[in-house]
Amino acid sequence: MTATDIQAYMAHVGTAARAAASRMAAASTASKNDTLLRLAALIRAQAEPLQAENAKDVAAAERNGLAAPMVDRLRITPKVVEQMAQNCEQVAALPDPVGEMTHLRRRPTGITVGQMRVPIGVFGMIYESRPNVTVEASALGIKSGNACVLRGGSEAIHSNLALARLVQQALRSTGLPSEGVQLVETTDREAVGRLIAMPEYVDVIIPRGGKSLIERISREATVPVIKHLDGNCHVYVDETVDLDLAVSVTDNAKTQKYSPCNAAESLLVHRGAAAAFLPRIGAIFAAKGVEMRCDAASKTLLQAVDSAKIVDAAEQDWYEEYLAPVISIKLVDSLDEAIEHINRYGSHHTDAILTNHHPNAMRFLREVDSASVMVNASTRFADGFEYGLGAEIGISTDKFHARGPVGLEGLTSMKYVVLGQGEIRT
Amino acid sequence: MTATDIQAYMAHVGTAARAAASRMAAASTASKNDTLLRLAALIRAQAEPLQAENAKDVAAAERNGLAAPMVDRLRITPKVVEQMAQNCEQVAALPDPVGEMTHLRRRPTGITVGQMRVPIGVFGMIYESRPNVTVEASALGIKSGNACVLRGGSEAIHSNLALARLVQQALRSTGLPSEGVQLVETTDREAVGRLIAMPEYVDVIIPRGGKSLIERISREATVPVIKHLDGNCHVYVDETVDLDLAVSVTDNAKTQKYSPCNAAESLLVHRGAAAAFLPRIGAIFAAKGVEMRCDAASKTLLQAVDSAKIVDAAEQDWYEEYLAPVISIKLVDSLDEAIEHINRYGSHHTDAILTNHHPNAMRFLREVDSASVMVNASTRFADGFEYGLGAEIGISTDKFHARGPVGLEGLTSMKYVVLGQGEIRT
Repeated sequence: MTATDIQAYMAHVGTAARAAASRMAAASTASKNDTLLRLAALIRAQAEPLQAENAKDVAAAERNGLAAPMVDRLRITPKVVEQMAQNCEQVAALPDPVGEMTHLRRRPTGITVGQMRVPIGVFGMIYESRPNVTVEASALGIKSGNACVLRGGSEAIHSNLALARLVQQALRSTGLPSEGVQLVETTDREAVGRLIAMPEYVDVIIPRGGKSLIERISREATVPVIKHLDGNCHVYVDETVDLDLAVSVTDNAKTQKYSPCNAAESLLVHRGAAAAFLPRIGAIFAAKGVEMRCDAASKTLLQAVDSAKIVDAAEQDWYEEYLAPVISIKLVDSLDEAIEHINRYGSHHTDAILTNHHPNAMRFLREVDSASVMVNASTRFADGFEYGLGAEIGISTDKFHARGPVGLEGLTSMKYVVLGQGEIRT
Repeated sequence: MTATDIQAYMAHVGTAARAAASRMAAASTASKNDTLLRLAALIRAQAEPLQAENAKDVAAAERNGLAAPMVDRLRITPKVVEQMAQNCEQVAALPDPVGEMTHLRRRPTGITVGQMRVPIGVFGMIYESRPNVTVEASALGIKSGNACVLRGGSEAIHSNLALARLVQQALRSTGLPSEGVQLVETTDREAVGRLIAMPEYVDVIIPRGGKSLIERISREATVPVIKHLDGNCHVYVDETVDLDLAVSVTDNAKTQKYSPCNAAESLLVHRGAAAAFLPRIGAIFAAKGVEMRCDAASKTLLQAVDSAKIVDAAEQDWYEEYLAPVISIKLVDSLDEAIEHINRYGSHHTDAILTNHHPNAMRFLREVDSASVMVNASTRFADGFEYGLGAEIGISTDKFHARGPVGLEGLTSMKYVVLGQGEIRT
C-alpha cells in the first residue's frame, strides 16, 4: 500500500471504531458476557482452521530464521487454544465496570452529585508476536464497553486475522457491532504511525513490547499512552528486620523468575544489618549463580562467600534492569539514603522495604515514588492478578490516569452525574 | 533573553521544581496548612506594597490601550486582597488528599493490597491576566503536596511577581522549600514553549484561558494537559415532563448568566412536549432579549411569541458556544435523536435532560458522553464548588485522568501499597 492508501485505510478503520464505540458503550452486561462465552466456544470449535493459519506464520518465521524461543511464542498449540478460550470465560465472569455509580452525595442546594464509570471510547493496542494477545485485548475491550483497534506483530498476521474473524463473528452473533474489535490488516509500519496520531478516532494507545518500541510510540503519539517502560525494582533491607524473612523475601524477589519486570534488580542494605544479612543472601545467590555487582562496602562482606560471582558495580549498574541472574548491591547509612537512591535510580515500578520498624515502613510507603510500594512482601506480587484486578491489559509506570497494573477500570473514566428535582442556581 | 538563555533559565526552574517536589510531597498536613494561613496573613499585611506593584501593571495596561473590562480584571482592589486571603484560608480548611489509603483488601496469598493517594509531582500552570490565579494555583499546589511552576499573563507581571514573593516567604517561614512555588520571571513567549516540553521536570500542564491558547498548548505539549475547551451545553426537554420545572430550569440554564462555560447554548425539545413548552420558554427568552436560532419546526411554534427574536439556525449553530443571549433550538422525535445530536454536536461538557420518565433519565445519564450529565437540574451547577470539591483548579473536557471540575484530587495519583508478613510468590 502507498502512504496515501494507508492513511485512507486507517481513517476508514478509525471512523468505524468511533461509530461502534457508542454501541459498545450502551451494550448490556448480558450481551457482552454472551459475546465472550460465544468467542470461547468458537475458539475451541475452530481450533483446527486456526492452527492451519498459525502454521503459515510459524513456517514463515522458521524460513526467516527467527530465533527458536520467538517461534515458540508464536505457536498456537492445543494448550494455547484452551488458554485463550478460558481467558474469555474468566473475563466474562468479572464484574462489569461500566455504569458503576459512586460517591452520590446530597449537596446543600438539593442536587445529588456523584460519579458514573463509563468506557473511554476507542483504544488502540500495539503488540508483538504472541497471537493470544489478540484475544486478551478483544476480551478486555468488549467487557469494558470500548471499541478497539488492534495492531499485532507482522510475524503473527495470519493467526491474528483468523482470531479477529472469530471475535467479529462472536460480536455479530449477539447483535453487537463487529467493528467493536478491528484488527489492522496491513503489516506496513506506517499504519502504526497513523494509529497513534488519530485523536479524532482513538482515545488512548496501549503498547506492549520492548522498551524501544514503547519509547518510540510515546514520543510520537498525539493521544495519551498507557505505557510500561522498565522495572528496576529494589529491595531495601532495613536495620531492624527479621533476618529469616529478609533472606526468604529477597531470594524470592530476585530468583523466583529472572525475566519479569517485577523481579528485583537492586538490593540496598542498611549498614547495621549488613554483616548478619549479606553473607546469608550471598550464599544463596552464589549457589544459584546470581552475579553480584557490589559497592566497596558490600563487596567486603561478600568476598568470603564460597564461589560468589562478585563484580565491582559501576554507576550505570544502579540504573540497570538486568532481567537476568545479576543483582546490584549497595550498603546505605539510613532510610533516607535508601529512599533517595530508589527515587533517583529506580524506574518507579515496584520497590519493597523489609523492616520491623513501623515508622520506617510508613515513611517508605509514603515517600518512595513508585507505582507499587511494599512492606515485607516480594516485589514479584506486583501483578494485576495478584492484586485482584481479575485481568491485566498492561502495567503503567506513569502517574497520569492509571498507575501500576491496569485492569478493566483503566479502560474507563468517571463522569459526573447530577440528579435533581428542578433545582436552579441562584 | 535569547532562546538559549530562556532554555537555560527554564531548565534551572525545572530542576529546582523537581528537587522541591519530594519535600512538598513529604510535608505534613500541619505545615502545609500553616503555610496557607501565613500566606493569608501576609497578603492582608502587605496589601499596600502589593497594590503599588499592581498599579504599575494597571498603568501599563491603560497606556497600551487595553479594553476597560480587561484592565478591571487586572486590578487588585481591597476586595480582591480580601478574596485572595480568604481563598488561602478555605484551602487550608479542606481535607488533605495526600496519604489517603483506600480499598485495602486481603488477598488469598496473605498480602494486603490497597491504594494510596500521592501528589503528581510538578505541575505547570499557564494563565492570563487575573493575578489572583497566582494565589489560587499556589494554594492548591501547596495543599496537594505538589511543586508548581506558574506562568501568568505578561500584563500582570509586576502583580504576579509580588504575589509569588509572598508565597515563597510563607513557604520559607514554615520550613517548606520556597521553590515549591515558582513564577516564571520572564514574559517571553518562548518560556511557555519550554514549560510544556520539559517532561523531565514537569508532569502535567494546566492551561486557563481562551480556546486558541488552550488548543495551541494541547497541540505542542509533550506532557499531559488537563484542558478545558468549550462548553456547548444542551438542555433536552423530554416528552413526559413537568412543564413548570422545564420552564424554570431551562430559563436558569440559559439566562442566569450568559458568559460561563456551563450556561446552556442549545435547547432540544421532544415533539410531543413542544406545543405546550416552547411558547412559554419563548416568551421568557423574548422578554430577556435572548435570540432564538430555530430549526423549521420550532420556528413555527415560536413565531407567534410577542417580540421574539427568531433566526433560522444554520448547521454551524448546533456546534456553537455563544456565551451570549443567543440559543439554538431544535425539535426531536425521540430520546435517541436527542442523545445522538448531543454526542455529535456537543462539546462533552455538561448536558441535562428534563423528564419524569425514569428509563429515559437513566439512558440519558449512561449514553450522553459528557463530563457532567444531569437529570432535572440546571447545567449551571457544573462547578467544583457546587459539586463539593471545595476548590477548582480547572475543568477537564477530556476523559483521561480527570473529567469535569478538577479539585485537589485531580492533582494527585493513586499508587498501590502492599502490606505483607514475609509473603513470597510461588
